Amino acid sequence: MYAAGDVRIENVPDAAIQEPTDAVVRVTRACICGSDLHPYHKLEPTETGRPMGHEAIGVVEDVGAEVRAVKRGDLVVMPFAFSDGTCVFCHEGLHTACVHGGFFDGYGTSAAQAEAVRVPLADGTLYPLGGVGEDDALMPSLLTLSDVMGTGHHAAVVARVAPGKRAAVVGDGAVGLCGVIAAKRLGAEQIILLGRHDDRIALARELGATDVVRERGEAAVERVRELTGGEGVHSVLECVGYEQAVETAIGIARPGGAIGRVGVPQHGTMPAQLPFFGNVTVGGGPAPVRAYIDELLPDVLEGRIEPGRVFDRTVELDGVPDGYRAMDQRESIKVMVTP
Amino acid sequence: MYAAGDVRIENVPDAAIQEPTDAVVRVTRACICGSDLHPYHKLEPTETGRPMGHEAIGVVEDVGAEVRAVKRGDLVVMPFAFSDGTCVFCHEGLHTACVHGGFFDGYGTSAAQAEAVRVPLADGTLYPLGGVGEDDALMPSLLTLSDVMGTGHHAAVVARVAPGKRAAVVGDGAVGLCGVIAAKRLGAEQIILLGRHDDRIALARELGATDVVRERGEAAVERVRELTGGEGVHSVLECVGYEQAVETAIGIARPGGAIGRVGVPQHGTMPAQLPFFGNVTVGGGPAPVRAYIDELLPDVLEGRIEPGRVFDRTVELDGVPDGYRAMDQRESIKVMVTP
Repeated sequence: MYAAGDVRIENVPDAAIQEPTDAVVRVTRACICGSDLHPYHKLEPTETGRPMGHEAIGVVEDVGAEVRAVKRGDLVVMPFAFSDGTCVFCHEGLHTACVHGGFFDGYGTSAAQAEAVRVPLADGTLYPLGGVGEDDALMPSLLTLSDVMGTGHHAAVVARVAPGKRAAVVGDGAVGLCGVIAAKRLGAEQIILLGRHDDRIALARELGATDVVRERGEAAVERVRELTGGEGVHSVLECVGYEQAVETAIGIARPGGAIGRVGVPQHGTMPAQLPFFGNVTVGGGPAPVRAYIDELLPDVLEGRIEPGRVFDRTVELDGVPDGYRAMDQRESIKVMVTP
Repeated sequence: MYAAGDVRIENVPDAAIQEPTDAVVRVTRACICGSDLHPYHKLEPTETGRPMGHEAIGVVEDVGAEVRAVKRGDLVVMPFAFSDGTCVFCHEGLHTACVHGGFFDGYGTSAAQAEAVRVPLADGTLYPLGGVGEDDALMPSLLTLSDVMGTGHHAAVVARVAPGKRAAVVGDGAVGLCGVIAAKRLGAEQIILLGRHDDRIALARELGATDVVRERGEAAVERVRELTGGEGVHSVLECVGYEQAVETAIGIARPGGAIGRVGVPQHGTMPAQLPFFGNVTVGGGPAPVRAYIDELLPDVLEGRIEPGRVFDRTVELDGVPDGYRAMDQRESIKVMVTP
């Protein structure tokens, strides 16, 4: 990406081992993320371009001398953050705070909307999918374990979704839809989707949403209160990241409730008083999706959850620029890339 | 209080039963709260005056026709919020969200810096101290169960203090000092007090603080990081309520950590991005101290905690205006009132 709206497919030097802990992964599936739309809207022009893409499944092509946990030929999930798997935060399951870790698709890192990607800290980062074929029918759902399904799950966990609780999901993008799946999976009794796109709403209902609120702002808060006996919801999954969405999330939370934010915040501040007087907890952040694969993978493999349904378009590499356009114009929920 | 800095002791009509669920309590001990200093700094002039005081112990003098749980002659703790004890939030232990409840010392309510106070919803609000005498030596510590000890405990609970964890307490006022007690009681391994008053720091060390940080702002954040191996603390008890204190709290939290805010926020917003990228949870609010008395009272009665040590001055009603002055000028940590 060279500037807002300017995505190009270019020949670049082949991904190659740089550190003995690296692996090179040939990408078999990648995708475009809702968070990729933020630079698509506002990236300052750059001469070198910014490599894009942080979600992938692929086959290990090469490994550095110190890599032990994966080997050439392994099919692996590449989570959106790399992590050593050994530091104190990784041991606690917060891989996105790894002291040696970082994120893909910044300047100077490799990225996944490509034929291949260099993966730092391969042992801690990559998750081998033993027994799964490169073109398995579950591939779309497996691909979501690299980001959106784990991220929706994180929102639900932080928002303390539990059996019998009322939950609301702010945002009908791919993460919001995965949030619906996660809230249902964790036993929420009521799942209110806040969104306004017919196709996404229809899918959300199939995935478990019990109610839909199309309003925004104060009207949305009022509508959610009507749907919850005036109390608001125990759990809010904030899957947007804009200021108004966070304000709505705070407004619809029940006293004593919890908000799990996973929308990357595009704003500097959030309200201090309203959550205080309601004893509402505001948590969340970059999801440690690496940690969640253990828990979510069996449900994907056994068909209990189908997060791959968020993909409604597939493109080859040449189609990536148009994929950004389609997602930005809400023609597509989420675009899968088959390099 | 008639305006910022203008506190007067006046004869007013006697507290009397208005609703069948009311009680009238003769105040034997009250106190001045750090939160009373907010109107003391900025109350707009008012012709009617605002009754002050929301923490008390006293003797029930009269009860309405529907009151069952307390009777004349009972010695009771009056928490700073009244609550029915029967609504869904009270049943969940969040009495400060009671659907019929409210707070003392607003306009139109009774207040505790007085000879007597009208207590709404007496059955749900008042906590009888069976077997305790009116002048028991533990009275100062028992009085803190009406607010500051329960509030410090709430901060510690929301901040997820637990055995082996590192905690920091922002603020060396009475609530901060009770936060130190609470953090120690819940097993924190390290307790860092952020404060700058020698007398309070000395007391905090006696109560369990292991480290003291006198710096503020960025320097405080840096110092806490030095004291915690660069990581920050698992648990932050924010006991101030000013914007800078909340920013410091967020700055010193360890990734994945939690902040319990109990300082009444004097600011409109708080940072949205820093807690997000660290997966730091920000919670807290008005403490449901009524719910916590069950847990804290035995520790007070058996001398395991001594929160009454936060009182370093006692005045009669006539001394209340000077008590405000003394607390405002940091001559006194917390002033007890014996009407």
